[in-house]
Order: sequence, then structure tokens, then C-alpha cells
Amino acid sequence: MDLTEKRLSSKTVFEGRVMTVTVDEISVPNGARSTREVVHTSGGVVILPVDGEGRTRLVRQFRYAHSKALLEAPAGKLEKGEEPLPAAVRELKEETGLTAEEVIPLGAIVTTPGFCTEVLYLFLARGLTQGETDFDEDEFLEIESYGMDEVKKLILENEITDAKTVAIYMKAAAFLEK
Amino acid sequence: MDLTEKRLSSKTVFEGRVMTVTVDEISVPNGARSTREVVHTSGGVVILPVDGEGRTRLVRQFRYAHSKALLEAPAGKLEKGEEPLPAAVRELKEETGLTAEEVIPLGAIVTTPGFCTEVLYLFLARGLTQGETDFDEDEFLEIESYGMDEVKKLILENEITDAKTVAIYMKAAAFLEK
Repeated sequence: MDLTEKRLSSKTVFEGRVMTVTVDEISVPNGARSTREVVHTSGGVVILPVDGEGRTRLVRQFRYAHSKALLEAPAGKLEKGEEPLPAAVRELKEETGLTAEEVIPLGAIVTTPGFCTEVLYLFLARGLTQGETDFDEDEFLEIESYGMDEVKKLILENEITDAKTVAIYMKAAAFLEK
Repeated sequence: MDLTEKRLSSKTVFEGRVMTVTVDEISVPNGARSTREVVHTSGGVVILPVDGEGRTRLVRQFRYAHSKALLEAPAGKLEKGEEPLPAAVRELKEETGLTAEEVIPLGAIVTTPGFCTEVLYLFLARGLTQGETDFDEDEFLEIESYGMDEVKKLILENEITDAKTVAIYMKAAAFLEK
């Protein structure tokens, strides 16, 4: 079956600093018409640093949309025209102060494909050197160190709920077990 | 450090069928002001059915925001006032035709907490009986059967990129290994 949905028209209903929202009229596979509300974002990167002792760094950050601080892998938005790998290197340095000898791509995820274009590129960082952090102006983070087994436990106990952090943990753990 | 961001004002800039978008003025921990663009959604459920042979069912569905069909765990939006568990039972039946003797809660994830309120509740379904599907009017799905090991392989090979599917796989696999 051809599952393709075709765009008939697109109307921008909101243009903000981090997202654009469109309402598109489409045709669905049986020829009927429907609408799709779409949040367009720049996408981003997620980078899990793992040191020689098998310990990683996570960041605790207030998430306004959830009214609480969440524990997450270091991550950030792609800047205009920026490639994922240098963005990952930049975000790792900004958020944790770490530089890495080796940055290994682990694919990408889509965070909520039903209504959002967001794609996050995943990276594992090894061979770490600690330096200074460089937070964005309105960014307030706490950096915490965990063993990889502790991260797994925090995920299974529902203490880590952030989907990108679950995905990067699973992919990094599988890579490191190889 | 108190990481709390406080709402000073909120303005609704878009109200659609599946989302409301607000732009909120906030104060950040150092007292400075900033804005947050927030996508408000109803949240949803994800349910992974696993049969007596350790095989699951995934759905392949066109995702307009990504212009392609993606392979995902069965999932759906919470209807107004609906509790997660009955919603999961409903979505499993609608999308795969399956009913389950046992529906086990596996926590929840946030899909993209930087700008979206979405929370997805995760469930494992066991003791399956096949019946008829009942798709939503503008929903076109293909149901595919995979062993749990095959799902892991598809995730690690980047064939499955949907974050909720990665999360439910990891949590269900850990539960079943216990």
C-alpha cells in the first residue's frame, strides 16, 4: 500500500525563535483530504561522554514545559547551517566543559514524529579532557557524574524520562559492549 | 542552585486540533527575563505487545512531518479526560486488533522537553488475542511482526529512529529479562 500523504497547501500560523508552526492541507492515501499541524524546528544533537572509568556526565536542567528539572544527556540545537558533528563537539564543551579525542556517530532519532520535524543526531564521546563550561545566556545547568549501569537503573526506575537520553544510553551501551 | 523558571505571562499564539502554542515571558534563576515557546499537547500512550513466542507487532505509518513512513510501536493520543491504561488498551485494539490479558505499566517518557509538554505513558501487553483493527478515519497503517532481538537490531542499525519505540523496547526487554 502507498502510505504517502501529499501536501496540497501550507499556511504558516506561528513563527517564533525556536519553532515555526504550519497547518497543511493534505490528501491521504484514499484520496480524502485532511490537515496536519506541523512544528518545524532546527533539530539538534545529543552527545554522551564516557570516560576511561565508564562514567558519563548528565546535565540537570529546568524544563519550563514540564515545570521541573530533568536529568538529560548533554544536547543542543543545531545552529543555522551547522553540521551535526561540530555541533555535538560545541555543545559538549559548552555544557560540560569536556573535549573529546573521539566522537562516534550513533545515528539519529525523531522525537515526536506525529507533529514535529525534529531530528536529533546522536554521538558518543571518548578520550575526555576537562575544561571550562560556557553556558548560553539563559541556560542554567548542573553537571552530574554517573556510571553507565547507574544510568540504566535510573531509566528503568523512571528517574530519567527524557526520550533522547534513553536512546543515546541504549546505543552507546551497545557500542561499548562490542 | 534553584533552577526554577517562573512564568510572568503567557500568550496563546496558536490553537489547533492537536496542539496549542503559547509564548510565555519568564524569569530565569539569575532574575533576568526570557521567553519560552511551548507546544502543549494532550500526551499519549505507547504499548508494545509481546506474544508467547517473544514476537512483537510494530506499525508502519506515514509521518507527514518527516515525509516518509516510519516503523513504530503502537501508540496514540490521550483523549480528553482519558486515563493512560484504558487508552493503551484502546489504541492496541484499534491499531493492531490485539487484546491483552495483561497490560503492564513501564513508566513514562517526555519526548522533547525543551519546548513541548508531551508525556507518553508506556505499557507492555501480554497474553494476546487477535481480533479486528479499527483505524481512525485518516490513519493508514501496516502491521509488521518482529522478534524482540530483531527490534534491537533495527534500532542499532538506525532503521527504527522513533524515540518512543526505542524507549518502550528498552524498558520492555529489561522487564521480560527479569
